[in-house]
Amino acid sequence: MELKQPYLLFLGDAADPLAAKVAQGITTWRPDSCLGQLRLPACNADVGLDDLTIEQAAQQGAKTLVIGVANRGGIISQDWISVLIDALEAGMDIAAGLHNRLNDIPQLVECAKRCNQELFDVRFPTQVYPVANGKKRTGKRILTVGTDCSVGKMYTSLAIEHELKQRGVAADFRATGQTGILITGAGVSADAVVSDFIAGAIETISPDNAAEYWDVIEGQGSLFHASFAGVTTGLIHGAQADALVLCHEPTREHMRGLPDYKLPDLSLCIQRNLETASLTNPNVKFVGVSINTSAMEEAQALAYMAQVEIDLGLPVVDPFRQGIGRVVDRLLEC
Amino acid sequence: MELKQPYLLFLGDAADPLAAKVAQGITTWRPDSCLGQLRLPACNADVGLDDLTIEQAAQQGAKTLVIGVANRGGIISQDWISVLIDALEAGMDIAAGLHNRLNDIPQLVECAKRCNQELFDVRFPTQVYPVANGKKRTGKRILTVGTDCSVGKMYTSLAIEHELKQRGVAADFRATGQTGILITGAGVSADAVVSDFIAGAIETISPDNAAEYWDVIEGQGSLFHASFAGVTTGLIHGAQADALVLCHEPTREHMRGLPDYKLPDLSLCIQRNLETASLTNPNVKFVGVSINTSAMEEAQALAYMAQVEIDLGLPVVDPFRQGIGRVVDRLLEC
Repeated sequence: MELKQPYLLFLGDAADPLAAKVAQGITTWRPDSCLGQLRLPACNADVGLDDLTIEQAAQQGAKTLVIGVANRGGIISQDWISVLIDALEAGMDIAAGLHNRLNDIPQLVECAKRCNQELFDVRFPTQVYPVANGKKRTGKRILTVGTDCSVGKMYTSLAIEHELKQRGVAADFRATGQTGILITGAGVSADAVVSDFIAGAIETISPDNAAEYWDVIEGQGSLFHASFAGVTTGLIHGAQADALVLCHEPTREHMRGLPDYKLPDLSLCIQRNLETASLTNPNVKFVGVSINTSAMEEAQALAYMAQVEIDLGLPVVDPFRQGIGRVVDRLLEC
Repeated sequence: MELKQPYLLFLGDAADPLAAKVAQGITTWRPDSCLGQLRLPACNADVGLDDLTIEQAAQQGAKTLVIGVANRGGIISQDWISVLIDALEAGMDIAAGLHNRLNDIPQLVECAKRCNQELFDVRFPTQVYPVANGKKRTGKRILTVGTDCSVGKMYTSLAIEHELKQRGVAADFRATGQTGILITGAGVSADAVVSDFIAGAIETISPDNAAEYWDVIEGQGSLFHASFAGVTTGLIHGAQADALVLCHEPTREHMRGLPDYKLPDLSLCIQRNLETASLTNPNVKFVGVSINTSAMEEAQALAYMAQVEIDLGLPVVDPFRQGIGRVVDRLLEC
């Protein structure tokens, strides 16, 4: 699966900026992939791109309309569908990471077929992946892991890719979730792969490469998440990471979705991730910690991070507040 | 999914007894579920049941024809299909754990529909499972784990179930692979579940139960298998096991399918399984080790097991040579 670029980002009737966070992510990390945004009258979000009609976007060469908004109640409204049909008829593919599939809407399927365009439901893999073979691959790999789900693994991975490229180091972000796939146009939604093939899927999206090239692989879940650690384990084994970055959100009171489960101690989390990752790469090491301190005051955040840095002996940053530079320094030293 | 019993076991044109090992397993562990066997002229296997025609089996009340043989080259031959059609027309369902699906053969699908019978491809889950919630369930659970794939986890689990029942302890085997499902008529093929739902599937097949009741959950893969450890991790978390039994095959030179990977040290394997299992049940403990010594001479096997017993401080048995009694003794002591 490879989405064609450039994109027109569909913000729909986003209730607030948070509802359009997929569009915001694409705009932040791949501004050159975005021609503009398309907003319906009720839209309360704005990612700062030019507002374009379908016709204008098509004239400027848009190849894919990306649904960059979470739809309300899981229903794709008739207002949306008429826009999507216009996009197909104007020669664009459509890509979405929604729970409900574009490919389950007969009007869209029929129109896409007639217009010879594609509908990409990036949350649902269509490719058949092999069983992992565990063989050492050439090139280098860095993987983000976490204390929990949704603690900033995608953001951290994209920041690392950006920083490496800024420094002239060859690198590519490897997406393992739907938002990451929409941002880069490729990848695999790891949690939707049949479990026999998780590690194999990650081996596939991060193949042999030049010796000095870095794959920056987006992690998923947590070894300490009682619902999703299977995904995390397969992902870690398939990644064969040379370097790991631990991601954490310090204000969370329990594991996401699991009120009975506390977050793990950071040292223990580091130890377990090293144990798991060393199966397929015995030389794996941690190169830093990425803290999402968005729920903390700055002084509190800085004090917390300074303490974690002393406790763990690794560079500790909030990539949003401070950039990921110190983690990349450590990565390139190793 | 629940297969109707009793069964007629189809041995087809099994090349040798090993090709009919599914039929052998069902006969060994659920003799009361089996009315007879059906063999084609070229069959070189015999599980010791009465040879019945479709007509005889139907008259005796057979409810499901179970394909108890591995087919050659993944192709279901026309010879098989005519037998399967006869079975459907005689009022039986058909169940198989093959890689290729009964439901992909138009002749069978059409016939099953016409006869109002069902085709069960037990390798492929049709049920939608929830995300695991990690909540403590009532009842007790024992899980088999392994150093590798195919080291005797199913056999050991079935032996434990049998021994518990012999002693008057309420227990049920919970199948997580296709052979186990065919033996018991229910369960989930864990490695075929979408990875987000592995732990949830295991929670589902082992629900709340009476306080003194034992679920004996069949393990899959190994935490040390670079291809399948994701499945194993999710299975362990969903099981919330109170007790674990380690299964091992001592003569194996490398992990199954992975020539570059050695088998783990038994102590390390115990430690890692306890670490993983303790996330959802902090009181988990090992109650024994089950060794498959089929490739060893008896004297060598006994000496090996005696040494492992000294090293690990747990009852060590080959359930095929010695029965699983000493492991169940330890289980019931705890």
